[in-house]
Amino acid sequence: MADNIAEKMSEAMREVSVAEFFEKNRHLLGYENPTKALITVVKELLDNSLDAANEADMLPRIKIKVTPISEEKFKVTVEDNGPGIREDKVPYAFGKLLYGSKFYRLRQSRGIQGLGGHGAVLYSQLTTGRPAKITTSIGKKIHYFELLINVSENEPQVINHETLENPKSWHGLKIELELEGRYVEGKQSILEYVKQTHMANPYAHITLDGPNGKVVYERLLNKMPKQPKEIKPHPYGVEIGVFRRMMSVTKAKTVTTFLTEDFSRVGKRSALQILKVAKMDPKAKPAEIPHEDAERIHKAIQGVKLIAPPTDCLSPLGEKLLEEGLKKDTGAEFVVAVTRPPSVYRGNPFLVEVAMGYGGTLPSDQSAQLFRFANKVPLLYHQSDCVTSDATKDVDFRRYGFSQPGSSLPSGPLAILIHFASVWVPFTSEGKQAIANYPEILKEIKLALQDAGRKLGSYVNQKFKQNEMRLRKELFEKYVPELAESLSKLTDKSKDKIIRDLEKIIKEKDVKREEEPAEAEKVETTKKDVVSEEKKEPEGDELNEKDSGREEKSEGTGQ
Amino acid sequence: MADNIAEKMSEAMREVSVAEFFEKNRHLLGYENPTKALITVVKELLDNSLDAANEADMLPRIKIKVTPISEEKFKVTVEDNGPGIREDKVPYAFGKLLYGSKFYRLRQSRGIQGLGGHGAVLYSQLTTGRPAKITTSIGKKIHYFELLINVSENEPQVINHETLENPKSWHGLKIELELEGRYVEGKQSILEYVKQTHMANPYAHITLDGPNGKVVYERLLNKMPKQPKEIKPHPYGVEIGVFRRMMSVTKAKTVTTFLTEDFSRVGKRSALQILKVAKMDPKAKPAEIPHEDAERIHKAIQGVKLIAPPTDCLSPLGEKLLEEGLKKDTGAEFVVAVTRPPSVYRGNPFLVEVAMGYGGTLPSDQSAQLFRFANKVPLLYHQSDCVTSDATKDVDFRRYGFSQPGSSLPSGPLAILIHFASVWVPFTSEGKQAIANYPEILKEIKLALQDAGRKLGSYVNQKFKQNEMRLRKELFEKYVPELAESLSKLTDKSKDKIIRDLEKIIKEKDVKREEEPAEAEKVETTKKDVVSEEKKEPEGDELNEKDSGREEKSEGTGQ
Repeated sequence: MADNIAEKMSEAMREVSVAEFFEKNRHLLGYENPTKALITVVKELLDNSLDAANEADMLPRIKIKVTPISEEKFKVTVEDNGPGIREDKVPYAFGKLLYGSKFYRLRQSRGIQGLGGHGAVLYSQLTTGRPAKITTSIGKKIHYFELLINVSENEPQVINHETLENPKSWHGLKIELELEGRYVEGKQSILEYVKQTHMANPYAHITLDGPNGKVVYERLLNKMPKQPKEIKPHPYGVEIGVFRRMMSVTKAKTVTTFLTEDFSRVGKRSALQILKVAKMDPKAKPAEIPHEDAERIHKAIQGVKLIAPPTDCLSPLGEKLLEEGLKKDTGAEFVVAVTRPPSVYRGNPFLVEVAMGYGGTLPSDQSAQLFRFANKVPLLYHQSDCVTSDATKDVDFRRYGFSQPGSSLPSGPLAILIHFASVWVPFTSEGKQAIANYPEILKEIKLALQDAGRKLGSYVNQKFKQNEMRLRKELFEKYVPELAESLSKLTDKSKDKIIRDLEKIIKEKDVKREEEPAEAEKVETTKKDVVSEEKKEPEGDELNEKDSGREEKSEGTGQ
Repeated sequence: MADNIAEKMSEAMREVSVAEFFEKNRHLLGYENPTKALITVVKELLDNSLDAANEADMLPRIKIKVTPISEEKFKVTVEDNGPGIREDKVPYAFGKLLYGSKFYRLRQSRGIQGLGGHGAVLYSQLTTGRPAKITTSIGKKIHYFELLINVSENEPQVINHETLENPKSWHGLKIELELEGRYVEGKQSILEYVKQTHMANPYAHITLDGPNGKVVYERLLNKMPKQPKEIKPHPYGVEIGVFRRMMSVTKAKTVTTFLTEDFSRVGKRSALQILKVAKMDPKAKPAEIPHEDAERIHKAIQGVKLIAPPTDCLSPLGEKLLEEGLKKDTGAEFVVAVTRPPSVYRGNPFLVEVAMGYGGTLPSDQSAQLFRFANKVPLLYHQSDCVTSDATKDVDFRRYGFSQPGSSLPSGPLAILIHFASVWVPFTSEGKQAIANYPEILKEIKLALQDAGRKLGSYVNQKFKQNEMRLRKELFEKYVPELAESLSKLTDKSKDKIIRDLEKIIKEKDVKREEEPAEAEKVETTKKDVVSEEKKEPEGDELNEKDSGREEKSEGTGQ
């Protein structure tokens, strides 16, 4: 009996097309509901345009148009002035999933998998059956395409292709999709996405023509950011499986040149040292090395000291831009920013930037606002699943003058921006909304938050102190006339003289207080979110504090 | 200039193999760190064995062995007595991603994508470079394979294949993998995974031979669950894109038979009604129908009333099994269970089951324990990202006698088991650890929780009442002698007589209280987790309560 069933079961096995896989699992690409789907389509097309502009080093001018066709159908058009796509590649660039130029390259960019634009086309045809309409030129003729994805085969299906003259040498890309969606405004919306994108890409000119009117985000910078460089993989981050594959396809003729040429940071001396440890002939042909030897070389690499990978593959926003962006966007009265030096996880270079804004028009009675970016792309969803949240909860914000109930986000008039830049962002899912919790990444974000927190803390504490002083002074001043009246009667001195004396005392005490740190008296304040415990410690120490030691010390004090 | 750059950029585009995609994005399959990787490998192989047993209707006996090779390397072996795999399919079943028998089938099963076992093989070779070793037979010869995945091509690469005699007609599958991992015990561990798996699959005999000894989970049921049936898609859940594709490949000769034969719940009368609304010729050939007509038919379907999809494609655990499993596993003193009737999301039938355990050895000073299952598979990770958590937080557990700070899980000696069964589980990522928040699913889980919560609530409240009474009584009894002494002096009556009278009063009051609901007096109790507000309302109403109305009423009371 068993063999009959097994026969039947074995017979039923077949290959699944990757397009079919993602069609069925479209929530993996960010299409789990109509609201999110509409945002995701705009996001993917906008990201692609910005990537193309970066790639070609051209200042981007992008027009986004979202037009309702019916209650639940929309037409989305995104047009850029980028380099365009060569006509023979257009069908694949939009009609074949897992097709792209960035997958094998180690350098910071927004998209990488060849799934973003394709996903938008796939969702569009799934929900409306309509083809994608693409107009592009690389400066020569203009090409117009209408295409669908043949889902069962994961192959493009061109419905229509026209070639047009291009007298003005236009170049760029325009894509038009029809899809089911729902348009919303608010915290998770197209408006918010475009606004935050512009915050991190101020060299872009973006027009958003939505159902409720037009918004223009002007270009604030007339210079493109420095192009990040492409790097080779660093040997520390290459697993044995990939290492063997690289070995089998390398053009290098000896294992020594394989190590020096196919990896970054391996000089000839390091290569020879590795091979000596692995007891290998430096002239061995890579393709002929058996598994056991390859394993020994791979193991030897981990034992030899190599320089960290180059970091010019990264393109940070920079502290100035971060501060300006956050201030403009949140209306904070005081802003600090920190760009950490690059670090490495799994052999991939990355760096973390943090900006914090305080006060101003920020609401003081709720949790801090968290703005998350990965390679300059805003992340709107899955905040609680993101390493940026974990890190923010782990840092003790009570030390910087904020309340923080349990292990949650701090409360108060606070905005926190975290930018993670890497050649490879480890998203928790293909929806690309949350960054996975690798220990090295968690650590760097925490350090950045602590750096920024300390900077902000002295301002917050000072402000709090001033506020406290003002309250005391006001209280005292209120009673001065009454007190003077009584004292005048008791001492028979002039009431005016006494008032002047008292005011002088108040003023002196003020000066003295400003010189010394606040005393340990507890004062009720109107601002519940700010705790006073921290202020007992002298300012100097505050700046030199060690992260670990103080962390323990402050546990259980504030709040 | 633009065309040069565009040329270069276009030239760089190429196809990415799906194996390479998942190798680089291995966290999508559950391999983001060594601890989770080791658990995931065991999980995937165990799930496959259980699925095969269900498929073939054979009582499973599964042996799992986890052997440390070095500090960070393990050998994992999983052997079953299932139907086995025909030798020609073995290389694909383990060496080609997105290859399997269940993707196109609508019926409840554990795996579905053809990624689970493949992912384990992929991770194994990535981290150790070693081939997978597979021994299988469908009752004829025994076949032994050693194979790798050719990652660049996503094709199997057979290193070794031996055919052996099979005198005892053994059938089954044994797979052995070497991989980097870390072994842990505790809440998220292999032990816990196997334990919970057995809880939902008590007809399985599972042996786990781990680094710290052997655990045997005996078979508790000698009958396999009823085989779920395969169903055709229900037209309500089919998007226009898929609808058109079905239309182009159908074997049906007219659009009428296409509707009645390729979908479930469309009879001839419904089909004709649909086509009439769509103004279509019932004899039109499906393959020749243009897009606009297809769109009209698709739209007409949504307007015609059809019966919900059949639900014999689902295989629930059942209330009895749920209660027994939860009681045995948590040591709860009182257990209730609810199996909801099937429902539909996106055209996919699903059902929700909930069990709740109270008291006993459950800890009373922390959040409720949540056990989550999808198609009988335990979910150990990403709890906060799962619709089951959302639903649990949404339900007001204060009404059932538990405290529940803010919008979080209830606290108290409570264990909650939620089982989601469907032909298609919408996981939030390929790691398959959290279920996506579809409105229909959220609603059903909430209803199940409320059903079970009400059942549990009367027990909890009764128990609480008894406890309260006991405390009062004890307090009163303590003062009886003293009181009697004083009264005796005042009234000159015998002290013994007075004590007897007082005790009679206590007893009468007890009886009276048990008849009537507790009064509105507030009493401090030792059990902080249980609130008394709810008890004011008469029992009868409690049972008939309406979800919506009462929800509002109780807001802001308890706690």
